[in-house]
Amino acid sequence: MPDILHRVGIAARPERVYEALGTVDGLRGWWVSETTGGSRVGEVIDFGFCQMKVVESTPGRRIHWQCVSGPDEWVGTEVIFDLAFKDDQTFVLFRHAGWKEPVEFMHHCSTKWATFLLSLRDLVEKGKGGPAPHDLKIHVGD
Amino acid sequence: MPDILHRVGIAARPERVYEALGTVDGLRGWWVSETTGGSRVGEVIDFGFCQMKVVESTPGRRIHWQCVSGPDEWVGTEVIFDLAFKDDQTFVLFRHAGWKEPVEFMHHCSTKWATFLLSLRDLVEKGKGGPAPHDLKIHVGD
Repeated sequence: MPDILHRVGIAARPERVYEALGTVDGLRGWWVSETTGGSRVGEVIDFGFCQMKVVESTPGRRIHWQCVSGPDEWVGTEVIFDLAFKDDQTFVLFRHAGWKEPVEFMHHCSTKWATFLLSLRDLVEKGKGGPAPHDLKIHVGD
Repeated sequence: MPDILHRVGIAARPERVYEALGTVDGLRGWWVSETTGGSRVGEVIDFGFCQMKVVESTPGRRIHWQCVSGPDEWVGTEVIFDLAFKDDQTFVLFRHAGWKEPVEFMHHCSTKWATFLLSLRDLVEKGKGGPAPHDLKIHVGD
């Protein structure tokens, strides 16, 4: 099954990047402004258009979600952020895995994830990300 | 074999987007400033760090390259841009196919391609892209 893969390097310690990935407040700063819910293992984070169950949340190391509702193509997929500190930065190795087919929507989501990971970097490095609905648009009407 | 997939929508006709994808001058404006070589079918485009043989170049429709030299992980891979006009824009459906393994470098390249496709959009819509070496950096030392 095809996966969406990305990597960005953030000039910060993994613990700081984890705060932005592993807490609802953090997620509101770079992905979806109106995020609610719980971010502990077993809880569900509500991003409005989708809901993610937290499978793993290891400070400074790894976040793993499973999509429990949202766009049809997303339900059952897994989103994983692995953190590794090297060369003076935290690399975020990202994977949105388990897509059934490489549909056009998957192409769209791949590009969107890239822009959101750069929004994550901006939040951590500069204090301000670009979460939806103020996210970078990648097509007319996005 | 895993693929890198992306999609952006550009507020322009496919013929204009094709100019930026299917000519050396166009490619210098959004991917690599120092691009040389030939962009007709059977010719090789030289991007410096890699060389792409042109497999197909159909105005307003499709560009298809095969990597003939460059980074080890790229040699033999295929890069395909499909253009489709709908909803007042040209959608660029992008695929970098034929990677042997989903290595960390593939994660990096996926994110870079997203930024270059947005550079392509900026070139076409605003007249100025961000080609290497003045591309958007995605990690410290990129």
